[in-house]
Amino acid sequence: MPVLVMKFGGTSVATLDRIKRAAKRVGVEVAKGYDVIVIVSAMSGKTNELVGWVNETSKFYDAREYDAVVSSGENVTAGLMALTLQEMDVPARSWQGWQVPLKTNSAHSQARIEEIPTDNISAKFAEGMKVAVVAGFQGISPEGRITTLGRGGSDTTAVAFAAAFGAERCDIYTDVDGVYTTDPRITDKARKLDKIAFEEMLELASLGAKVLQTRSVELAMRFGVRLRVLSSFEEQSDEAGTLVCAEEEIMENRPVSGIAYSRDEAKMTLISVADRPGIAAAIFGPLAEAGINVDMIIQNIAEEGRTDMTFSCPVDQVARAEKALNAAKDSGDINFHDLVADTNVAKVSAVGIGMRSQSGVAAQMFKTLSDEGVNIKVIATSEIKISVLIDRKYMELAVQALHDAFELEKA
Amino acid sequence: MPVLVMKFGGTSVATLDRIKRAAKRVGVEVAKGYDVIVIVSAMSGKTNELVGWVNETSKFYDAREYDAVVSSGENVTAGLMALTLQEMDVPARSWQGWQVPLKTNSAHSQARIEEIPTDNISAKFAEGMKVAVVAGFQGISPEGRITTLGRGGSDTTAVAFAAAFGAERCDIYTDVDGVYTTDPRITDKARKLDKIAFEEMLELASLGAKVLQTRSVELAMRFGVRLRVLSSFEEQSDEAGTLVCAEEEIMENRPVSGIAYSRDEAKMTLISVADRPGIAAAIFGPLAEAGINVDMIIQNIAEEGRTDMTFSCPVDQVARAEKALNAAKDSGDINFHDLVADTNVAKVSAVGIGMRSQSGVAAQMFKTLSDEGVNIKVIATSEIKISVLIDRKYMELAVQALHDAFELEKA
Repeated sequence: MPVLVMKFGGTSVATLDRIKRAAKRVGVEVAKGYDVIVIVSAMSGKTNELVGWVNETSKFYDAREYDAVVSSGENVTAGLMALTLQEMDVPARSWQGWQVPLKTNSAHSQARIEEIPTDNISAKFAEGMKVAVVAGFQGISPEGRITTLGRGGSDTTAVAFAAAFGAERCDIYTDVDGVYTTDPRITDKARKLDKIAFEEMLELASLGAKVLQTRSVELAMRFGVRLRVLSSFEEQSDEAGTLVCAEEEIMENRPVSGIAYSRDEAKMTLISVADRPGIAAAIFGPLAEAGINVDMIIQNIAEEGRTDMTFSCPVDQVARAEKALNAAKDSGDINFHDLVADTNVAKVSAVGIGMRSQSGVAAQMFKTLSDEGVNIKVIATSEIKISVLIDRKYMELAVQALHDAFELEKA
Repeated sequence: MPVLVMKFGGTSVATLDRIKRAAKRVGVEVAKGYDVIVIVSAMSGKTNELVGWVNETSKFYDAREYDAVVSSGENVTAGLMALTLQEMDVPARSWQGWQVPLKTNSAHSQARIEEIPTDNISAKFAEGMKVAVVAGFQGISPEGRITTLGRGGSDTTAVAFAAAFGAERCDIYTDVDGVYTTDPRITDKARKLDKIAFEEMLELASLGAKVLQTRSVELAMRFGVRLRVLSSFEEQSDEAGTLVCAEEEIMENRPVSGIAYSRDEAKMTLISVADRPGIAAAIFGPLAEAGINVDMIIQNIAEEGRTDMTFSCPVDQVARAEKALNAAKDSGDINFHDLVADTNVAKVSAVGIGMRSQSGVAAQMFKTLSDEGVNIKVIATSEIKISVLIDRKYMELAVQALHDAFELEKA
């Protein structure tokens, strides 16, 4: 029998009624002839409650005990989902992480999956069981302790099971109905994509499209797991949602697939830094230690022996960044004339694997923004992405204009 | 190091503050030099919530999934208790049932403990760990599925651990401060007992003193585990609470240790039953099949070849008992002239191991009730117990009079 993996997030199993609704979706796939592996999250809110208790109990907690506590929410939904399926006369049983066993390393609270033996579950499928319900987000360490995979770990669990069982597809049921060309709140021309390449999804995810956890997309790309994102709140056909897949599977060849944005960015410039080998490390080392999420980095030679260094980071990290850089200046590690922070910028990015083969995308992007009177402050590019920093007040305008310019509303 | 087992019930771990309070008690025992095994219940209300979800999901549920769901509450408190102890600089870690492993049979939702290997936990004690926090109520079946031990299973877990580790004592922390000579709500002369024999505790427990689960007392008696019942809401000394122990350890030799009662009893009489060998089986077989909890049974020979058969049962089972007996009459299995139910009776019992050696206890009990004008409807006796059925309206009066007559207020 072909295997299908279906993952239901916290909002999709938040109540007994929603679990029933999800179980009905599982029943539809079983009726098509699949052996189904269902990965469940905890009922929404439960994990946060447990994390809250741990934090209140202990500031510097033992991550092994943290994992033992916070993994319990998934066990509840796994059992309830199995019972619900049995009520529908679908042969099902639940597995907790240690029962599979889903083997991880010992990095508690952010463990990495090392191995998923398939014999236990496959044997039950062979006996006539149709659905294995697996508690997501959890595994077992070499020491026999419970581990958790970190936030979004249930997506990763689902993809890992799909890889281990050679599943035909991994369906991620969530509270949105797919991946869009851009945020529908910014333009009603935003269109749901039928397909998107793994690489594009990674760029969109890290840019703030919070549909899929980045790690799960990386894993799917590595093992060639076809991922489908779709809503658990609508009646679904076989073509529903968005398929995240290898680029070979995507026939259409448009240069840009989506416009992403990040609203609360800041641009910081170190003016007239004394240039020498190792200066970048001397600047960005202290920032990393201070926990600053540096994104774009641009260096300009301003005059002989000196350089201007510009970077972007989240706006709420500016004060910490300034502190770290001034401390480095005081200790003599770096030398600069001035430090200027612009906290009124946003990032807008065009993402598309078609850029690799089609030229002129950057030029069209810059012209579009120029036509709208939007000044570009910083540019950064990768193979499949062009990002610009602009004044925050132009962000919506820029997204709308680029969405129009690349004709993303057209299928 | 001597081992001490401490068990905290649901009300004793209902909040993070109460867990902290319980952890402080554990710290006191660690400071005395004990290696401590702590058994925890789920936060009060949690297990009922989980049971409710299972019942709402499935009427005839798979008990294996029931167990997977309802066992999760204990895992949360075990982890939180370990973290709380660590915060107090007490080396501690949590164990879930399958990690010990606490091995049970496969009778899901009411499993029996088969074995508790001590090597895992003992090895950690040897490494310097001071407290093993174990999730109560749960174990693992030979098939590797999670089992639960049934209601009150955490008491049983505690006693089983005390037996396996040869613990010096098993302290059961609960919301009452010990076992009383009778219910303090009926007479304020009720006195807390310092010690009570296992056999007495069993009679009191089955008679409705809901302090300890019957199975845990049976287990303690079998393995000679000294049990102490005490309150988690008071500062406690070494002599606090009530010690449940072998009768050899009890020096005082009073005939009666306590007066128990059961308010909602019914007395049913089959009048003029055709007497023949096997007639008792023919009557009580159908009652057992109907799930009637028959308690006292009295047979009187009324006339040649016929007998009156009287028994007692909970008052809310009378209708079912009548139905079962009339069905047996209709099918010709038994024959009787009339079936009379008296639903206005209560049971009052005097319990004491001293009865074995001291005569006249029954006579004094009957005289005391007679002096108060209380008519006795049924009498039943065992080696350490005398029970009577009386009109329900005299129940409080009878308990008070007997408590006085046997001078139970005196230490």
